[in-house]
Amino acid sequence: MTTAPPPLKDELDIVIPTIRNLDFLEMWRPFFQPYHLIIVQDGDPTKTIKVPDGFEYDLYNRNDINKMLGPRASCISFKDSACRCFGYMVSKKKYIYTIDDDCFVAKNPTGNDINALEQHIKNLLCPSTPYFFNTLYDPFADGADYVRGYPFSLREGVPTAVSHGLWLNIPDYDAPTQLVKPLERNTRYVDAVMTIPKGTLFPMCGMNLAFDRDLIGPAMYFGLMGDGQPIGRYDDMWAGWCIKVICDHLGLGVKTGLPYIYHSKASNPFVNLKKEYKGIFWQEEIIPFFQAFNFPKECTTVQKCYIELSKHVKDKLGKVDAYFDKLADAMVTWIEAWDELNPPKA
Amino acid sequence: MTTAPPPLKDELDIVIPTIRNLDFLEMWRPFFQPYHLIIVQDGDPTKTIKVPDGFEYDLYNRNDINKMLGPRASCISFKDSACRCFGYMVSKKKYIYTIDDDCFVAKNPTGNDINALEQHIKNLLCPSTPYFFNTLYDPFADGADYVRGYPFSLREGVPTAVSHGLWLNIPDYDAPTQLVKPLERNTRYVDAVMTIPKGTLFPMCGMNLAFDRDLIGPAMYFGLMGDGQPIGRYDDMWAGWCIKVICDHLGLGVKTGLPYIYHSKASNPFVNLKKEYKGIFWQEEIIPFFQAFNFPKECTTVQKCYIELSKHVKDKLGKVDAYFDKLADAMVTWIEAWDELNPPKA
Repeated sequence: MTTAPPPLKDELDIVIPTIRNLDFLEMWRPFFQPYHLIIVQDGDPTKTIKVPDGFEYDLYNRNDINKMLGPRASCISFKDSACRCFGYMVSKKKYIYTIDDDCFVAKNPTGNDINALEQHIKNLLCPSTPYFFNTLYDPFADGADYVRGYPFSLREGVPTAVSHGLWLNIPDYDAPTQLVKPLERNTRYVDAVMTIPKGTLFPMCGMNLAFDRDLIGPAMYFGLMGDGQPIGRYDDMWAGWCIKVICDHLGLGVKTGLPYIYHSKASNPFVNLKKEYKGIFWQEEIIPFFQAFNFPKECTTVQKCYIELSKHVKDKLGKVDAYFDKLADAMVTWIEAWDELNPPKA
Repeated sequence: MTTAPPPLKDELDIVIPTIRNLDFLEMWRPFFQPYHLIIVQDGDPTKTIKVPDGFEYDLYNRNDINKMLGPRASCISFKDSACRCFGYMVSKKKYIYTIDDDCFVAKNPTGNDINALEQHIKNLLCPSTPYFFNTLYDPFADGADYVRGYPFSLREGVPTAVSHGLWLNIPDYDAPTQLVKPLERNTRYVDAVMTIPKGTLFPMCGMNLAFDRDLIGPAMYFGLMGDGQPIGRYDDMWAGWCIKVICDHLGLGVKTGLPYIYHSKASNPFVNLKKEYKGIFWQEEIIPFFQAFNFPKECTTVQKCYIELSKHVKDKLGKVDAYFDKLADAMVTWIEAWDELNPPKA
């Protein structure tokens, strides 16, 4: 088992939506115990979540969210794990790692436990390379470098804002693919981390995700999902499209690849289909919208970018469905709430 | 050892620049023998290359090139492995695989020989996905698919024009990196094939490369290198920049990743530095030129794209160095020679 001392102890919070599974924290204990946990309880606030001894944590339920945000609590999803983004907002740390409670410690091909957090931290602390593709993948990995033909002027890279980790066992498929391939398991361990190039969008999954709150936090909003909303399972996708266009504009990097976690169980494809089906056709309009999006140069901060984006969401995607009007308003509310809880440092 | 019957026997030529090493063909015999080889002999035409029994091949030396192309032979490099692109031109097959004579059969992590050609053929026969990043890499690989959030309208993909394979052992580093890290070896087997996204350039290495001649052949020109030229080791890079912008324009895909070959020996970094040093600063202007390049919509064929590109090379890069004037002319000559040897089918 890898037990290298985890760095950044005082600079990282682990954000977890409702923990339904007590084994989860026991399994992660060797890796997570040094860190502070933020648990955002999804759904009924009268239920209690039992956290095993030895973990330092804060737990927020719906009553806490309502109390802290007042009317602005409307931007935080209810009865959906999208509520986790409240944890990003209340954290005071530079880095966030978020993980689902059905994700366990994976093993690498040599049979050792993977310290996912340690790899995410490596990814976040090393520069990204969004302007040119390196064929040997992460040039900062051990035993790797930039290959012949990689421009020297681009080798410093740019700061990394997001590290997107992957999943062994149950792959993150949409409901139609789950239905068609119920037995498919991901057993391919791809030993690589790579920067997603500038101008390219990707499907960001929130199961195993780390980011630099100072660099991109205010854009890591998981939207309106769950109770009272016409859509689910697009919370992380929405955040992924938003953070990618903003990172591209601000010159920040997004990485994907290692580390893997072990995704233990597939969610119900029938339930998923119900949550997803509007998203499946909406995304056909949303993605071209994001692909064509350009920020004006006055947008020099994440907040300014996000407010600008919300205007265009209302203007362009509002025509697709009234949901996007509501979402655009919630994006503004989210930024107001973020700024209230995170006043600019003097 | 993987000995699956190689497909496409009558549709693929293997193009090899001068073979200096007889072990090379012996090692590849189980995989290459079913195919026709085109050997393009670099340098002195009076020397003879001994090809082991059992291989079907054509060998072209400088005299053959001069005889076949006449004055247009000037576009084919002399005393440089860039001459290999003559083989692409004289082939009559749909697919080309090109490999260097210091590249041997690699082993996969389970210790089996890698049939590089078979993997290249898989890569070329499966669609590419340049418009959106799939986080589980090649969605057409066994046990993989498109992940949640991948737009359904993009799942058909586009035809694959190029398959860029990688190298274990000696990595393809530039001379400065070779000098700084003489002992670095690539031991990381990354079990992935991926499409290089639209709009992203990459350093294409000619060591282990396959392509669809019908789709992209006329753009696979390896430029003017070697004897009488101010630069070397940029032949494949030049082709890589050109093919990528043309593939992006024509809606074709470029893949990189598997298969690996075993690159047996590092070339001399001092000699390489001499060949590369102009390229190292020229590429700082060449790459922004290609990144900003846009074809007019009249450019509907590879040939039209390539001629258009040559005009801009002359116009824009001609200011960087007179070499690019000469190169732009050679690009036109190359297309004339290509069209003469490959008249349009009735």
